[in-house]
Amino acid sequence: MQTPPRVLTVAGSDSGGGAGIQADLKTMLALGTHGMSVLTAVTAQNSLGVQGAWELPAEAVRAQFRSVADDIGVQAVKTGMLASAELVRTVAELLAGPAAAGVPVVVDPVGVSKHGDTLLAASALDAVRTALLPTATVATPNLDEVAQLTGVRVAAAEEMPKAAEAILAFGPRWVLVKGGHLPAGDAVDLLTDGDARHWLRAPRHDNRHTHGTGCTLAAALAARLAHGDTVPQAAAAAKEYVTGAIAAGFRLGAGIGPVDHGWRLRGAR
Amino acid sequence: MQTPPRVLTVAGSDSGGGAGIQADLKTMLALGTHGMSVLTAVTAQNSLGVQGAWELPAEAVRAQFRSVADDIGVQAVKTGMLASAELVRTVAELLAGPAAAGVPVVVDPVGVSKHGDTLLAASALDAVRTALLPTATVATPNLDEVAQLTGVRVAAAEEMPKAAEAILAFGPRWVLVKGGHLPAGDAVDLLTDGDARHWLRAPRHDNRHTHGTGCTLAAALAARLAHGDTVPQAAAAAKEYVTGAIAAGFRLGAGIGPVDHGWRLRGAR
Repeated sequence: MQTPPRVLTVAGSDSGGGAGIQADLKTMLALGTHGMSVLTAVTAQNSLGVQGAWELPAEAVRAQFRSVADDIGVQAVKTGMLASAELVRTVAELLAGPAAAGVPVVVDPVGVSKHGDTLLAASALDAVRTALLPTATVATPNLDEVAQLTGVRVAAAEEMPKAAEAILAFGPRWVLVKGGHLPAGDAVDLLTDGDARHWLRAPRHDNRHTHGTGCTLAAALAARLAHGDTVPQAAAAAKEYVTGAIAAGFRLGAGIGPVDHGWRLRGAR
Repeated sequence: MQTPPRVLTVAGSDSGGGAGIQADLKTMLALGTHGMSVLTAVTAQNSLGVQGAWELPAEAVRAQFRSVADDIGVQAVKTGMLASAELVRTVAELLAGPAAAGVPVVVDPVGVSKHGDTLLAASALDAVRTALLPTATVATPNLDEVAQLTGVRVAAAEEMPKAAEAILAFGPRWVLVKGGHLPAGDAVDLLTDGDARHWLRAPRHDNRHTHGTGCTLAAALAARLAHGDTVPQAAAAAKEYVTGAIAAGFRLGAGIGPVDHGWRLRGAR
């Protein structure tokens, strides 16, 4: 058997299985890659919110990364919940080091959960801006994260280029600003490197079961980059995958259910 | 969308993505279920062995389990690496409690990794025997774990019923004794509840990339039980799935590569 492309997520665990490394690993399998993971934190979480969180020590994050990078190697990395300033700095150092040289990095600058639970300490914002974002091939903030990181508030799609520029100023090569939180119309995202502008549009699905959307999009982007796609190709493929997953999102528990990572696999199982 | 059957793994994390909750979550997706996870420990691990391990506090294990059980509910549970006597007892208590009443439980009594690294403290063996195994609908020991738990050593397939009886004496409803470590011939497993005997045979694949085999089999068993299979049906389906995954196992790193959890999904991705 040929080895599939290897993709690493550096993120937190969602016990409910809809977001975090669970969403990432499922997405990576669904997109034909070998998913691996560096755990940064473990949450007790379900459809109603986050009931508890336990951070891993920086030493454990480094050791997991070294185990993966030194023996197996990676063809793309995605970061999600990093919890604290120390972990943000630790991960940024690893991504700036030789093990990740030439490897595309997708940074999902996770700030709060779908329920508004804090997944990143306020004291970590500066490390995200100055240490983590410069390592990113693509950063994938939603509009809340844009506001948190840059102060730029976006109320309509035509203001998204301004948000993109503010993020690009921190040093990522590309930014995918996600407009899904805008009030109406298509779900529109803007991908830009400061020169090219790609508007990614998808019909907005009337489905409240969207837990894990952000993780899934970033993981799909990383998986497609590991397959060798260009950034615009990978972003378009990731948007298509997550749109299908949202359309197939299902009820789970009493609150917000997850997107369906297996929507493309039906019939094969 | 209809909610798929919900399956929970209570196990450790393998950063390399081939075993542990990574193998379980991938298997659960491949078999059409919604996978969830309670992390008990985080390992830094690759194709060469286990380079580090960090246990979660018992309180974090309880909180994750409660988040999943109280809001989402489970239709099958699988346990893997539980690390310490305290965590074994914590998990056994949760599985004996009301949240898991009537829910099939697959106990994979993980003792050592494929490389011989210890994943369960010697002081935890008694808790596995007296607290965990009685909660099992099916226990899935390999021959090393049988020897560790019961003292019974098996050198040939005809001695497997004796091993099964010794495990059943601790109280699981069924036992699947895995003969994969026997020196030659077909890979033969014995499933029995003390009355019925089902011999599960599969051709032995000449493939050294078998990391995650045990996790994958137990997770597949749990997934099929969540779909409503009987134990013999689920064991046969799980054996078929893991046999295909071993046949498709691939090189990853310098040592033992993983089985391919996506072997049935090709063409759909």
